[in-house]
Amino acid sequence: MIDLPGIQELCQQTPSKILFLVVDGLGGLPHPETGKSELEAAHLPNLDRLAQQSACGLTTPVLPGITPGSGPGHLALFGYDPLKHQVGRGVLEALGIGVDIQAGDVAARGNFCTVDSADVLVDRRAGRISTTETTPLCRRLDALRVPGVEVHVYPVRDHRFVLTLRGEGLAEEVGETDPQRVGVPPLEAQALTPQAERTARALRGFVAQAREVLSREERANMVLLRGFSQIPVLPSMGHAYRLNPAAIAAYPMYRGLAHLVGMQVLPTGATFQDEFSTLRQHYQAHDFLFLHYKPADAAGEDGDFSAKVRALEELDRFIPQLEELSPDVLVVAGDHSTPAVMAGHSWHPVPLLIHSQWTRGEGIPRFTERACASGALGRIPATNVMLLALAQAGKLAKFGP
Amino acid sequence: MIDLPGIQELCQQTPSKILFLVVDGLGGLPHPETGKSELEAAHLPNLDRLAQQSACGLTTPVLPGITPGSGPGHLALFGYDPLKHQVGRGVLEALGIGVDIQAGDVAARGNFCTVDSADVLVDRRAGRISTTETTPLCRRLDALRVPGVEVHVYPVRDHRFVLTLRGEGLAEEVGETDPQRVGVPPLEAQALTPQAERTARALRGFVAQAREVLSREERANMVLLRGFSQIPVLPSMGHAYRLNPAAIAAYPMYRGLAHLVGMQVLPTGATFQDEFSTLRQHYQAHDFLFLHYKPADAAGEDGDFSAKVRALEELDRFIPQLEELSPDVLVVAGDHSTPAVMAGHSWHPVPLLIHSQWTRGEGIPRFTERACASGALGRIPATNVMLLALAQAGKLAKFGP
Repeated sequence: MIDLPGIQELCQQTPSKILFLVVDGLGGLPHPETGKSELEAAHLPNLDRLAQQSACGLTTPVLPGITPGSGPGHLALFGYDPLKHQVGRGVLEALGIGVDIQAGDVAARGNFCTVDSADVLVDRRAGRISTTETTPLCRRLDALRVPGVEVHVYPVRDHRFVLTLRGEGLAEEVGETDPQRVGVPPLEAQALTPQAERTARALRGFVAQAREVLSREERANMVLLRGFSQIPVLPSMGHAYRLNPAAIAAYPMYRGLAHLVGMQVLPTGATFQDEFSTLRQHYQAHDFLFLHYKPADAAGEDGDFSAKVRALEELDRFIPQLEELSPDVLVVAGDHSTPAVMAGHSWHPVPLLIHSQWTRGEGIPRFTERACASGALGRIPATNVMLLALAQAGKLAKFGP
Repeated sequence: MIDLPGIQELCQQTPSKILFLVVDGLGGLPHPETGKSELEAAHLPNLDRLAQQSACGLTTPVLPGITPGSGPGHLALFGYDPLKHQVGRGVLEALGIGVDIQAGDVAARGNFCTVDSADVLVDRRAGRISTTETTPLCRRLDALRVPGVEVHVYPVRDHRFVLTLRGEGLAEEVGETDPQRVGVPPLEAQALTPQAERTARALRGFVAQAREVLSREERANMVLLRGFSQIPVLPSMGHAYRLNPAAIAAYPMYRGLAHLVGMQVLPTGATFQDEFSTLRQHYQAHDFLFLHYKPADAAGEDGDFSAKVRALEELDRFIPQLEELSPDVLVVAGDHSTPAVMAGHSWHPVPLLIHSQWTRGEGIPRFTERACASGALGRIPATNVMLLALAQAGKLAKFGP
């Protein structure tokens, strides 16, 4: 909805505040033994009470049946059509660790990996080697020189790093070098369009040198690259919605995404408690605060049903503290479902709750997938959530005479 | 849906009749003390019975979260995408009082207002001066001559008038002269595009003369202008849907809108009883009759919960008379919600009921927001209502082989 013609004229700056809590991987599926989803199995007295007083519904992140990554899932919630506005994984990762990536640069996600003497992949993650070990390796890769291109390598976490290329005429259309399985050699970087030929050549040059430099390492003796991408031009949330938005997220990628849509990314710690302290500290300075809760998704990805239940219950205990801030609008949404029984993201619609003075309850007893299906908001595209939040905050003027 | 490619080939002329009742501001919100909305609090035996025999649902006028004006709200119900087809306030107002406005003309809403000796606005509505007093003033303004432009001024009601400009090379992109608050002088008409320079100059000329002419008036000693607009080119309902549509509406703006979409606007009186007499009189001559009911919106705008309840109850008493006409399809829809607790239009979805021989009820006990949320039609864009009405009337052929 950020692309809605005239959206900026419709939006009006007001002192009202929107607290926008995104529970990563919120939605789930019933456990085969109990028939209850994670939300149904969890004890969530605060979220349930809030749902009883809220407008509830289910969001479709992209389209029915489409399983979104975290990028599209979040973009949709912020009102960006995820089919139109696509952000590459490399760019997200780079922004997330605070790399100064500029228009035209190409960023990629890198893995240290292990190959045998025949150049066959034996471990795509180099034994999940620690950041302590990879940081000096990244420094050595960062010192490599590729003709005509400025190359930088930044450690991320464990076996992961970010590679950035800067130079004239770079393009992102390059096939990844990670074959996604062991027992075969890493792939060569191949241009997928003629425009990307120069970039692919630079990448092959970098990989050849990296192989040399790492050849004596026991585990991290090679690199895999994927997610080649350049910064897309995204309209700014602050500009389009006339907001002064801030993001509080412990994980790099979400910070990167928030930066890309024009939010001020607040420094915070590693836990949700840290995030909450940051929220309280900066609450007065912003009229839109995006707060990210990761543990539900992490547990779902691990296929750990009871860990996801616990993660939701832990979040529930924070709800009264969020309410104490008295935001004019409190949104609880998810970027996508991560059912523990699937151990991964899924396409299922995601519970949504919007609370304001204009929501007086609608007979929804609980904040669950099934209850929200009967909510007053119905099933809506996730891209509509921002409009509803702005409307409830009194930030949207009447459209047309 | 008027823009649906091939809509005209899909539509077939039949003797069947669609009675399309638009209850302005139909939807509401629960009263904080009772937890019941206006529709829930009202005694509506006829609408409730009709809902039990109908296909019901909720319409979204523009998009979730977007609060529509009456223009977009009605256009959507007639199948016009309100984001694509926008009609300016001046044009609507001009059409509503039967002004012969033509392509290229610029129309504006005018207010008589009061300024003090320092030209500072002290009353934006000149004490809501009566039409009796403003009619001769309009006549004097109508006699003004602006070089190269034909100027006309028409009284509307109380302090309101319509100004029209006719001439070569006029454009609507002119900023309004109403500063929207007292304590400051009226604004000068400013062109917002180079094309509108000529129009802005003519408007400044008009305002300067109007100030002269009105200088001795005690209250109405100045004018404010806004809503500069030209006629948009809208596809004709009659043509696209193969209908012979008529509009029965007491209020000027709705008549103007109906004219713009190609309906025959029938002369009628000021009350709904008058409208109903007009309906009965012209019922045989048309296959689509749009009937407008205003009092629900007026009460909602006033923030008068019990007046809105009464307005709905009054409408309910007319329902059996409408049924006696035996329309093949009876639609009861709203252009938007006007919750009394908000004292204004809102973004909330609007109850919808479509009754025909092909609707046999679906277990919806009442015609309320909550009951319609469980209706068989679900939540649909208001632009789809015409398709459903045409279908129920047997006026839509099968799409595709």
